[in-house]
Amino acid sequence: MPGFATDVQRVTVLGAGSWGTAFAKVLGDAGRDVTMWARREEVAAEIRDRHTNGSYLPDVRLPERVTATSDAAAALAGAQAVVLAVPSQSLRANLSVWRELLPADAILVSLAKGVELGTLKRMSEVVAEIARVDVGEVVVVSGPNLAREIAAAQPSAAVVACPDHERAVAIQRACSNGYFRPYTNTDVVGCELGGACKNVIALSCGMAAGLGLGTNTMATLITRGLAEMARLGAKLGADPLTFAGLAGVGDLVATCSSPLSRNRTFGERLGRGETLEQAQAAAGGQVAEGVMSCSSIRALAQSLGVDMPLTDAMHRVCHEGVDPRQAGTELLGRSQKHEWY
Amino acid sequence: MPGFATDVQRVTVLGAGSWGTAFAKVLGDAGRDVTMWARREEVAAEIRDRHTNGSYLPDVRLPERVTATSDAAAALAGAQAVVLAVPSQSLRANLSVWRELLPADAILVSLAKGVELGTLKRMSEVVAEIARVDVGEVVVVSGPNLAREIAAAQPSAAVVACPDHERAVAIQRACSNGYFRPYTNTDVVGCELGGACKNVIALSCGMAAGLGLGTNTMATLITRGLAEMARLGAKLGADPLTFAGLAGVGDLVATCSSPLSRNRTFGERLGRGETLEQAQAAAGGQVAEGVMSCSSIRALAQSLGVDMPLTDAMHRVCHEGVDPRQAGTELLGRSQKHEWY
Repeated sequence: MPGFATDVQRVTVLGAGSWGTAFAKVLGDAGRDVTMWARREEVAAEIRDRHTNGSYLPDVRLPERVTATSDAAAALAGAQAVVLAVPSQSLRANLSVWRELLPADAILVSLAKGVELGTLKRMSEVVAEIARVDVGEVVVVSGPNLAREIAAAQPSAAVVACPDHERAVAIQRACSNGYFRPYTNTDVVGCELGGACKNVIALSCGMAAGLGLGTNTMATLITRGLAEMARLGAKLGADPLTFAGLAGVGDLVATCSSPLSRNRTFGERLGRGETLEQAQAAAGGQVAEGVMSCSSIRALAQSLGVDMPLTDAMHRVCHEGVDPRQAGTELLGRSQKHEWY
Repeated sequence: MPGFATDVQRVTVLGAGSWGTAFAKVLGDAGRDVTMWARREEVAAEIRDRHTNGSYLPDVRLPERVTATSDAAAALAGAQAVVLAVPSQSLRANLSVWRELLPADAILVSLAKGVELGTLKRMSEVVAEIARVDVGEVVVVSGPNLAREIAAAQPSAAVVACPDHERAVAIQRACSNGYFRPYTNTDVVGCELGGACKNVIALSCGMAAGLGLGTNTMATLITRGLAEMARLGAKLGADPLTFAGLAGVGDLVATCSSPLSRNRTFGERLGRGETLEQAQAAAGGQVAEGVMSCSSIRALAQSLGVDMPLTDAMHRVCHEGVDPRQAGTELLGRSQKHEWY
């Protein structure tokens, strides 16, 4: 018998942002008993008492099976699976606080998409380090999953990745319902890199739109972005097929083409000439994941000798004061004659 | 010395639709002398006298170097390159008429995207057969190239493919300008299949939008569509990298996400419940390329034993009276557990 529940019934979701809340709804609609943890008690109370989370998913009603608390110990008691739905750069600090509260056999699931600044670790690596588990036991969920559409029960496919197939299947079963179709995969490295890199590319697509450029440019940025994330993945041992799949091109296209994407919207403001501070103020004080990720992914690529011109351009715009138009001209002006060489 | 001009100055564009006209503008802006052939004399006269083509590219002014005629013999006299810009299903009939008029050393360039009904030939194969040239000498141009954006001089990348690298380079030089950046490639098979299949997938994305589905569904259709075009390509000897590039995912994303795409718009009407005849009437009597291509690509795939569920679904909706919602449910309901098996 495995050391975890193959029929996961009690799930805790740590984080009550839009994706954490939408995923809690997915689990609830799949018949699971879900307890969310929210940092702010008023958000927890709203979910618990009214089954809504108006700040993140207005007009969405959560299932009765989803409840919430701001007490992490209460949220985690008895959980068979723990879903980590906090921003990537705060995952380490949060998990360090929760570490002693994690039930021993709970399957750990990461929804966070990013590469940690400083350590250059992927999220599953951060989880394994802090929770003191084998990195091959951490499950990652990714795919073309805009939270608002999933919360509206629109049919969506996703990838549940874990080197341990049994754990992946347990989580796949726990979140399968009439509108959410998860496929299993063993390539956590590819899924996580796809999820982290797409935020940077979405930032560049927004920036291009802000500069007045159209669909051809967006499609070119997506194509070039996909190529550079696949180069990074190849160096780190990811399966190239992953980038051609739901967690690669699927997630990338969804994020880059949706007006709902925070990274895209943030990039659009930069493209229209706003400073990072102005765009941040307009986004309620938050910077988009891609703004941080472009620096950590760039550092990771440099440490491995991988060329990522688009990520590099985004870093220079976001953190070195380079004008978006100038960065774009340099990107387009790279001397290349054959498509791949 | 090669049997063709390496410095192509005089180019004829056969066809004055939106892409033919935009490509003539690209060539003119690259300093070439361009003669277009238009079927209707009033279109030719408008291009010749006023340097506009209001029916296809309103508000676009063509360079002085671009002229037009409805006399194919006059259009073709002295051409160093001949660009074929007519719909894929009428290329054979048109080219049969023009065959005797083609200058012996002219480089033949195909912009047509489709697989011929009946023969199941790609466009370069049709060109080679009718013009009686080696198929390895035909050049194909593809990529994320929405005509209206290129006509507005928005920066765009493209692929110029030919097994004969010298011919590809000659055409690359002829159409390179400040906003149009062509890359060479030798994989004509992959480029042509990408161009043909994307119309079918765009049709499916439009259909999903017409059914009220959102960005996650579109991204999933693009991902699955890319996988099935790559399967077909692999069987026909295409380079897998082509599908990850500008003529694969690039062209696919541009066509599927743009409201300017005819195939997408056509699919949207079908998704909203219109019949093929109603959608055709709304499109000025024309059916979208994807409506024809889904049948020829399906037949090609069947002849090779390649599974293309999305193309199959589009064929059943367009030609067997299956309800779009029913087709979508069947597509999503395919029993798959691992992403790739």
